[in-house]
Amino acid sequence: MTRQSKPLNTNRGKTKAVVLLSGGLDSYTSVAMAMEQGFTCYGLTVAYGQRHSQEIRAAQKIAQTLVMAEHKIIELDLRALGGSALTYDLEVPKSASAADIPNGIPVTYVPARNTILLSLSLAWAEVLEAFDIFIGVNAVDYSGYPDCRGEFIRAFKELANLATRAAVESQEEFKIHAPLLNLTKGEIIKRGVQLGLDYSLTHSCYDPDDQGRACGKCDSCQLRRKGFAEAHMEDPIEYAPQ
Amino acid sequence: MTRQSKPLNTNRGKTKAVVLLSGGLDSYTSVAMAMEQGFTCYGLTVAYGQRHSQEIRAAQKIAQTLVMAEHKIIELDLRALGGSALTYDLEVPKSASAADIPNGIPVTYVPARNTILLSLSLAWAEVLEAFDIFIGVNAVDYSGYPDCRGEFIRAFKELANLATRAAVESQEEFKIHAPLLNLTKGEIIKRGVQLGLDYSLTHSCYDPDDQGRACGKCDSCQLRRKGFAEAHMEDPIEYAPQ
Repeated sequence: MTRQSKPLNTNRGKTKAVVLLSGGLDSYTSVAMAMEQGFTCYGLTVAYGQRHSQEIRAAQKIAQTLVMAEHKIIELDLRALGGSALTYDLEVPKSASAADIPNGIPVTYVPARNTILLSLSLAWAEVLEAFDIFIGVNAVDYSGYPDCRGEFIRAFKELANLATRAAVESQEEFKIHAPLLNLTKGEIIKRGVQLGLDYSLTHSCYDPDDQGRACGKCDSCQLRRKGFAEAHMEDPIEYAPQ
Repeated sequence: MTRQSKPLNTNRGKTKAVVLLSGGLDSYTSVAMAMEQGFTCYGLTVAYGQRHSQEIRAAQKIAQTLVMAEHKIIELDLRALGGSALTYDLEVPKSASAADIPNGIPVTYVPARNTILLSLSLAWAEVLEAFDIFIGVNAVDYSGYPDCRGEFIRAFKELANLATRAAVESQEEFKIHAPLLNLTKGEIIKRGVQLGLDYSLTHSCYDPDDQGRACGKCDSCQLRRKGFAEAHMEDPIEYAPQ
């Protein structure tokens, strides 16, 4: 899984897109797919007080390897609002395998997170005169978060086209691209490898150890491991001894 | 227009609401109407890099006079995204009267601002287990911003009910209240005065002078002055010499 720069250099289109980049495997793949489609990409990372701040560092590293027009990191401390194991002092749940992840929406759900991320993307898109936004949500191998579903993405598109001067004053329409929406984690990884992505740069774990190694047991680690197993690939990141 | 505390003490309901408070006349009135309706109010002010930071100080002063359960100020620097005379180094347009405000959406429009404000309110509402959000938008005497219209508010409600664990896991529905939506500025002011509000606490001007006095000529000042004239009231704030 060495990085081949070729597919990432296809970024020569003139159509601008704002692409959300978290530092995880999904958003990295989503950004690469936007570039492959010829969009000139403007990467947006929101530092929302994730307790796994390693994710932000991963986003920076990824951004350095991609040929994006710009990469912005915006600070927004959602910890002030509380309410999630990802921003707050709640325990991250662990399970023995992806099949053992309990049903229902887990405590790692960050209230209204994707609504906030898309709102900020929309603001930047308006400034850039871009009408395309990419988000790496996935509704197959996911944690059951409601804001990862197709109906949510469609509702945000409706909103965007009512909310903005850009849409009201032009003939253009905002499009919210969710290219991973209906892929399995294994399919996402295979797609990324085809695009020459280096998944050793990514960070997925909700609860890394002091040395930054993935726990291997949180929902996000379990889904990632299941994905690499399905893709018959070896995960290049380091896990804490199990 | 002395402040009478009586109507503001009607805040004894058990139903929680997140209420957006900017420091302007409209949001102050909207919050007071939420309290009058019996909601227990949680005030949210977003410091988004307004160049008229006096607005934030006004929000703090207003919050101190209202019997709210809590008041939070969240920092989110939208200047990083650029694109508005309110956050950026663009000139605020001035006109001779409210009737002279040009048609179209002015440069003071902040891209996706109300989408962002409502997203943050939604996040906090979920944490609080509240299903009611108040926003002081107005589609009569307003600057023509697209995110002040009824169809925008309705689209956000649709989104909120798809985006959140709170809506998916319960029988309850989010409601976005915009009690000023169809009132003129004069009607808003009359309503606020009935509720005992002290409009000397509010700040509306987009471009105050060094002493914090309102310019009297920006769209926001013009609409405010027209409102007080219609209500046959004297505006208690200080204006710079014209």
